[in-house]
Amino acid sequence: MAMEGYRGFLGLLVSALLVGFLSVIFTLIWVLHYREGLGWDGTALEFNWHPVLVVTGFVFIQGIAIIVYRLPWTWKCSKLLMKSIHAGLNAVAAILAIISLVAVFDFHNARNIPNMYSLHSWVGLTAVILYILQLLLGFFVFLLPWAPLSLRALLMPIHVYSGLLIFGTVIATVLMGVTEKLIFALKNPAYSTFPPEGVFTNTLGLLILVFGALIFWIVTRPQWKRPKEPNSVLLQPNGGAPEGMEGSVAMNFGNMDKSDSELNSEAAARKRNITLDEAGQRSTM
Amino acid sequence: MAMEGYRGFLGLLVSALLVGFLSVIFTLIWVLHYREGLGWDGTALEFNWHPVLVVTGFVFIQGIAIIVYRLPWTWKCSKLLMKSIHAGLNAVAAILAIISLVAVFDFHNARNIPNMYSLHSWVGLTAVILYILQLLLGFFVFLLPWAPLSLRALLMPIHVYSGLLIFGTVIATVLMGVTEKLIFALKNPAYSTFPPEGVFTNTLGLLILVFGALIFWIVTRPQWKRPKEPNSVLLQPNGGAPEGMEGSVAMNFGNMDKSDSELNSEAAARKRNITLDEAGQRSTM
Repeated sequence: MAMEGYRGFLGLLVSALLVGFLSVIFTLIWVLHYREGLGWDGTALEFNWHPVLVVTGFVFIQGIAIIVYRLPWTWKCSKLLMKSIHAGLNAVAAILAIISLVAVFDFHNARNIPNMYSLHSWVGLTAVILYILQLLLGFFVFLLPWAPLSLRALLMPIHVYSGLLIFGTVIATVLMGVTEKLIFALKNPAYSTFPPEGVFTNTLGLLILVFGALIFWIVTRPQWKRPKEPNSVLLQPNGGAPEGMEGSVAMNFGNMDKSDSELNSEAAARKRNITLDEAGQRSTM
Repeated sequence: MAMEGYRGFLGLLVSALLVGFLSVIFTLIWVLHYREGLGWDGTALEFNWHPVLVVTGFVFIQGIAIIVYRLPWTWKCSKLLMKSIHAGLNAVAAILAIISLVAVFDFHNARNIPNMYSLHSWVGLTAVILYILQLLLGFFVFLLPWAPLSLRALLMPIHVYSGLLIFGTVIATVLMGVTEKLIFALKNPAYSTFPPEGVFTNTLGLLILVFGALIFWIVTRPQWKRPKEPNSVLLQPNGGAPEGMEGSVAMNFGNMDKSDSELNSEAAARKRNITLDEAGQRSTM
């Protein structure tokens, strides 16, 4: 299916994949080359799983999950398949995030370091809890077929908003975590003397920020949104007659992935029309 | 002028103002009660202007600048006036951000602490530089009357995107800064023993995050966008005949403040229509 600005999309997608992949590689180099390596024994080796799993799952995989509806090669796939991939990637990210928490709690407990005193831990744990709630809400409301369409229409803007908010919060938390770890770990030579590990890991922080910026750009371009199915229907809960003119445009509106039910353009929103595509309805049954 | 969901908007606006104001108050309590106070003498007193000015200007005032077009009481004001207020608030925020940098560089230099070694400093300086570029670009392209309409249409989505990206990056940088400062400053009792200053300043970090989340919600609701002027015209740079149907709906589309020229709904974007309101054109002349 044709996509406007396909070359631009492709360039940004490849950049995002590259920068995201580089972030994971940089994290591995950090813990394997500059730090103690990886293990599961309550020592720093176990702690080191924390950044590796967070950057791999909670940053890279979550980022891909956010833009997966926008890959034009998937536009011929059913909405149900794409929802399953979106949910599956987010579930993998959630599992990796939870294991990453186990690693750091284990490490703290083995070393008698208090848990949950830092701003990093407060924001990070909140993000993980909200992410799991978001995943459960998405599963029960949008993937399973039983939620009424009015509920889907009501929750979709919140789902999109909170997804992006959590993703941004995760990146902020990672930057806090890098800051904490470098201050704690770099004593001799100190972080302030520009040791190679400090410069390298700062660069990792920048890569993660650039990855987030690329995902945010890709997911907010209206012209790269997955098109509505052609056999769309317009439901009007307030009983008004369908207005084909507005509906047909509203059908194509959207600058975020809003799945199959959404409050569309401002004009449509003001009339409280709810637009739904038939395939979207079918796909969840 | 009527706004859909006015009570919801009002509730969120009051919440944002309250949380933003509380963030500034918390920052003042932090530096005046828990830290050394304020001064301009190269000591910690001067450093303390850094968080105060950043939270006041770069977080609170920038946040208000982002949503200023959405205040329904301003919808009867001219676009030129609103642009001037948007630019003015951002200029004040930029000046406070620059002074906040002077404070921290002065402090470092007086104490022989190296500059620009931390991830906080890398990301923060980048954000300030991008913010100033964004301000200059906005001034010359959108406020002054000389930029061609095609350039405005091209740059507006980038202006909106980079504005929100910089705002989010600033909040992430503040959270890194809080993390740094608490680790450096809280030694006896240590940050890890939950001293009152640690808990208080973590709470400040959460407040700033909530402020950002509220601004992000308010600015991305399509129904709260400043309406287009009624006497709109539709320009078609590719020479096609105006399509009133799409134009009239596209006119009301938008879930971000896109000023007076924008690529509208996906359908419209695909046809490369550029919608412009007459008042918007006039307001910059």
